[in-house]
Amino acid sequence: MSENTEHVKCLIVGSGPAGYTAAIYASRADLNPVLYTGMLAGGQLTQTTDVENFPGYPKGIMGPEMMEDFRHQAERLGTDIRFGYVSSVDFSSLPHKVVADENKTILADTVIISTGASAKWLGLESEQKYSGFGVSACAVCDGFFFKGEDVAIVGAGDTAAEEATYLAKLCKKVYMIVRRDEFRASKAMVHRVLNTPNIEVLYDTETKEILGDGQSVNAVKVINIKNNEERVLDVTGFFVAIGHNPNTEIFKGWIDMDETGYIKTKPGTTLTNVEGVFCCGDAQDHIYRQAVTAAGTGCMAAIDAERYLAAKEHVVTA
Amino acid sequence: MSENTEHVKCLIVGSGPAGYTAAIYASRADLNPVLYTGMLAGGQLTQTTDVENFPGYPKGIMGPEMMEDFRHQAERLGTDIRFGYVSSVDFSSLPHKVVADENKTILADTVIISTGASAKWLGLESEQKYSGFGVSACAVCDGFFFKGEDVAIVGAGDTAAEEATYLAKLCKKVYMIVRRDEFRASKAMVHRVLNTPNIEVLYDTETKEILGDGQSVNAVKVINIKNNEERVLDVTGFFVAIGHNPNTEIFKGWIDMDETGYIKTKPGTTLTNVEGVFCCGDAQDHIYRQAVTAAGTGCMAAIDAERYLAAKEHVVTA
Repeated sequence: MSENTEHVKCLIVGSGPAGYTAAIYASRADLNPVLYTGMLAGGQLTQTTDVENFPGYPKGIMGPEMMEDFRHQAERLGTDIRFGYVSSVDFSSLPHKVVADENKTILADTVIISTGASAKWLGLESEQKYSGFGVSACAVCDGFFFKGEDVAIVGAGDTAAEEATYLAKLCKKVYMIVRRDEFRASKAMVHRVLNTPNIEVLYDTETKEILGDGQSVNAVKVINIKNNEERVLDVTGFFVAIGHNPNTEIFKGWIDMDETGYIKTKPGTTLTNVEGVFCCGDAQDHIYRQAVTAAGTGCMAAIDAERYLAAKEHVVTA
Repeated sequence: MSENTEHVKCLIVGSGPAGYTAAIYASRADLNPVLYTGMLAGGQLTQTTDVENFPGYPKGIMGPEMMEDFRHQAERLGTDIRFGYVSSVDFSSLPHKVVADENKTILADTVIISTGASAKWLGLESEQKYSGFGVSACAVCDGFFFKGEDVAIVGAGDTAAEEATYLAKLCKKVYMIVRRDEFRASKAMVHRVLNTPNIEVLYDTETKEILGDGQSVNAVKVINIKNNEERVLDVTGFFVAIGHNPNTEIFKGWIDMDETGYIKTKPGTTLTNVEGVFCCGDAQDHIYRQAVTAAGTGCMAAIDAERYLAAKEHVVTA
């Protein structure tokens, strides 16, 4: 093996709740896992502020701090954590070939994919500025923080419609900003939105700016693109629900995915269609997308990988 | 409605990681959940000692303390937690009827079943005495604590065989105590056990006593029931792998289960065959059975329940 080639039993790609939980379990199963953090070490949670819904933090915690806890735990149990990224894979034969940091080849008996997904954003500077301080891409995660207040949500698909009605139960008023003159969502979901009294739909409308006092959001400026009328919505929360991109680009062509790029797993497991490759977290979940569901599937992936290796070892020696 | 009848949007039955996580999510979704703890408040984790593998506790935590954290978190977010139990249910019409503490009727729009499972034990006094101090019913959870040491495991089924080989990777030596002169496990699993050099199988053998110094296990006395020969095994860990009983007795006849009593859910969701009834945690999982997987499905159950209610509301008003 060349100097820049390394053989590992278990390679974990990604460092969100799924990846670190897989690492915790794989370490304790003596798989000596190697984990590549990816470019955003800690994953999406590092871009949030308060997290109240991860069990085990009775008083809540800040997202980045929580991911530090996860990392320390994986590290303490023996995970080899590397601040680098996987640039390409070759799943055509066993062991799997993975290129890290463009120049290092890793031969992996098992690969756990936990690369997550990225929320799509509008691309406004003020949106980034107030991210975690009024701007959110997850109504289930953050809606509760705006209980009794007025909020706005951008999006026109099924998820946006679902999140709008979710917010409508918690908030006083929900402005739903739809860019075209109609929804993309299913009829049933549109019906639900239109029959929720405290949702006001603004069609043909785009967001111009998120306004705030420097600390947190206090309004949103929108424009009607048909008549160029501007309007300022007094809201404390701004939800972006225009979709997610699973971070699975490098696996394309090597593994079964749906049309959006979510990796397909055998339901109730983390098994992919490729032997020895397991997937957990948001890279395979567009339904629940919570830190704790990702952590649960991370645990499953490590157990699945351990059982795969145990079974394989004994087939070989049989 | 009579004085002893109460209508709730979301009733959670059980108080392990699944139940409390469902409560955290249902509370934040404003479902005003009511949670009945059951007879063992906090669930199986309250019978363990050190927990190292739940993400978010970098230094580990004691099981009972962790469940206190979960309870406080659910409470703080508004869950109505009741130290009582559900004695019977009637899922024949909506809303579902649930009898609590033998005499209170709850009409529930949604029911989240998180009653868990109970490990089967041998029934020895010394087994109970050292539970959590060398005696365990979960190799994946506790095997790591016996790294490099000698352990014994009781059982003859597939799970026992799987756990024995799991332990064999971590421990110096594994004694496998099998009561009959053969395994119940599948051929493949038996093959795996017999081909693992550091597993010694003791057939026709029963456990007489777990021995210790008052603090923790240091040996196990076994007897060969064919020749009555006794033997003392010097082990620091004693694993019981003779099966689990899902705590689903009261739901029998009302909901689809497998032959062991595990409640069937639609894969990848927590939906049962009964409208408005969701199941999470070990009551529906005999594969992974970890605190964090249970917590993940608890979150899913609350989200599934919320979405069910949201969809239903709008069908009715349509």
